[in-house]
Formats: sequence, structure tokens, C-alpha cells
Amino acid sequence: MRQRHKPWADDFLQEHPDTVISNPVSYRGRWKDVFANDAPIHLEIGTGKGQFIVEMAKQYPNINFIGIEVAKSIIVTAAQKVLVSEQLNIRLLHVDAERLTELFAKDELTKICLNFSDPWPKNRHEKRRLTYYTFLDKYKEVLRPNGEIILKTDNMGLFEYSLASFSQNGMRIEEVNLDLHEADDSTNRMTEYEEKFTAKGQPIYRCRITCNHKGNS
Amino acid sequence: MRQRHKPWADDFLQEHPDTVISNPVSYRGRWKDVFANDAPIHLEIGTGKGQFIVEMAKQYPNINFIGIEVAKSIIVTAAQKVLVSEQLNIRLLHVDAERLTELFAKDELTKICLNFSDPWPKNRHEKRRLTYYTFLDKYKEVLRPNGEIILKTDNMGLFEYSLASFSQNGMRIEEVNLDLHEADDSTNRMTEYEEKFTAKGQPIYRCRITCNHKGNS
Repeated sequence: MRQRHKPWADDFLQEHPDTVISNPVSYRGRWKDVFANDAPIHLEIGTGKGQFIVEMAKQYPNINFIGIEVAKSIIVTAAQKVLVSEQLNIRLLHVDAERLTELFAKDELTKICLNFSDPWPKNRHEKRRLTYYTFLDKYKEVLRPNGEIILKTDNMGLFEYSLASFSQNGMRIEEVNLDLHEADDSTNRMTEYEEKFTAKGQPIYRCRITCNHKGNS
Repeated sequence: MRQRHKPWADDFLQEHPDTVISNPVSYRGRWKDVFANDAPIHLEIGTGKGQFIVEMAKQYPNINFIGIEVAKSIIVTAAQKVLVSEQLNIRLLHVDAERLTELFAKDELTKICLNFSDPWPKNRHEKRRLTYYTFLDKYKEVLRPNGEIILKTDNMGLFEYSLASFSQNGMRIEEVNLDLHEADDSTNRMTEYEEKFTAKGQPIYRCRITCNHKGNS
């Protein structure tokens, strides 16, 4: 995503420590206290400008949503959307997905959404893809039994790679959709990217994965 | 596939019992005797007019190929191609895929190819799809440890369904390709269908699956 330098971003983040949580590692294992309820927690990795998470939070008021985004100049835009929405069931974290297991305890999450992640198409960058096995191991750790991963992308190569990676790491493919908007799923909420690609007529790929099946290791 | 009535088909099959094997069930567990060697056996389910199996047999002379096809008026066309090719490493069986475990013993096959299978798009016909779990159970029985299944299709719905079905039945997705001819795999051999669809610019989907992993049940 294109990043513009925003000199006011640091001040903005300091002024909104309850929207973009200032010391997220300190809440590991007690995110339900942050939300002050026991609702399931869904995580979006790479929240971008925040359209998806805000619309999801409106659509599902009984679910708590956490979005993580590593780019400071982008997460402030998402934070502004969250503030305007006045939704109480969203928190943002300005942090790298590498640190997932520092942020969440075992079984703390119900669902992880990977939306239009960087495809890192070169073989030598495979390790950076959010569906590389080192990431999948982290997802297994923080997802509760039968927890879900939803991947959406316009990138054919990333989708092909991810299906194989999920399968080869003991996860279960529940559903595959090779042309999401053709399927006309009225519950789908679009990211900013997704709107742009869909307008151009490009297919959007989606899959739903489960892991940590009861009785499995 | 469109079937024309061919009044000469019965006579043709009777005259070529070594090409279209007349009593295939009797060879269960001893197909290597039929080929008179120990080479791996690859099975194509739904051989159609035979272009794929004949080209594969030429390309891989050290592999034995068996094609099964339920339509009599179509298998005779495949048989004519086999006869013209003079390849000794091909046999055809005029039989329904339902009977797979009557035809092959445990571990007798190395690979199964499903090429452009009937997608049976209606939910109530799910049981007829060649990737419905009852068929997958048969494939597991006749494939040797780490045996492969290669699925190729132009049908998006069948491909989506099949990926999930493989995964949910303990098989492992090794490779997914969402636009085979874009990927320009020079070892790919096309079926008659595939040539037609590819000429129209339609994407061809392919996946490679393994099952019966050593150490697994």
C-alpha cells in the first residue's frame, strides 16, 4: 500500500491510546478485559485503511475485532475510521504480525482474517508470506480449537501457494471460492483493495480454513 | 461427452480383448502380469476419446497406463487410437469407476488422473462427483503409500468442491494451479476437451494430491 509520510501520526497515536493500543503486549491473555466482555475475538492481520474491520464490527456487534497493521501512516487512517464509527468492539495494534504470539495467548482468538496480504511473489521472499508455515504455526497457537482462518486475495500465486501450505501444515480446507463476487455472498464485506479490484472485474479468491481440530495434535 | 450410437461397437470390443480388457475384474492384484513388467501403473478415470492416455504412454514408456471409460461408443474411439499408436503400455477397461476396488488390489496403483470429470453441479448429484468422499475412499484403497491424484478441470465449481473434499478426507494438497496454460508446463498433455477449452481462452485448473502418507492411517 502506498504510504505518505504523516508528521502528525505520532501525536495522533499518543492521543488515542485506547483505539490504537499503546502497549499491546501487556494485554496478552486478557483481551476480554480490554473489551470488558467475553465475546469471541476476531483478528485481521494487515488492517490497512480499516474499511473491512469497521464494516465487520458494525455487522457483528457481538464480536470483538482487533486489527493489526505495521505501517504507521496507514493505521492512523484506520484509527480515524474507527473513531468516526463510534464502534466499541474494535481495537487496533500498530505492530508486526511476526509478534503474534507475544500479543495473544493460546486459544485467545476465534478467527483470523488475512485480507489482500502482500503476495511476495519471489521464491526468496517465501518466508515473508503470511501463509508461510512459520506464520501458520503462530496462528495455530493463538486460535482456539476449531478456530478459523479466512483468506481473501486477488493474487492467484498467493492463493495457490496458500491452499497447499494450509493443507501441508495439518489445516483443513472447509471452503474454496475462486470468484467471490460471482458467488454473490451478501455477508461479504470489502476492503479498499477489494473494491478497486472488483470494479476492474478481477476475480477475488477466498478460502475458509479450520485448525486445531479437537482430538488432533 | 456426446455419444453417437455405434452398432459395430460390440463386435469391435470382442475383436480387441487385449486392448479393451474383456474381463478386467479377473486381473485384480495382477495387472503387472498383464503388462508383463513391474512398472508403476497410472490410472485415468474417464479416458474419453483417449488422446491424453495415448500421449502420456508415448511420453512415459516406462509407465503402464490403464484408462477406464463407461461409455461404449466413446471407448471404441480411444481403443482405435491405442491400436494406431502401437503402444504396449496401455490397456482400456469398459467399466464404471464405482467398481474401482473390484478392479485393483490395495496399493496396486501409483497415480490416478481425473481429467475433465463430469462436474454434476446440482447439490443432489454430489454423490456422483468423482471427488465425493466415497470415491476418495476407493482411491486411498488402491493407491500405494504416497500415491498421487492429479485433477484437471475447466469447471470452477468442481475444482472448488474437490480441493475442500480432498482436504476434509485426510489427503494432502501438494500443488494448485489456477491457470495451467498460463504456467506453461511443457510436460502437460492435453485431453480433447482441454484443447477445446484452452483454444477458447478458458482457464484450466489443476491440483496434485497425495494420500496414504507413511505413518498415517
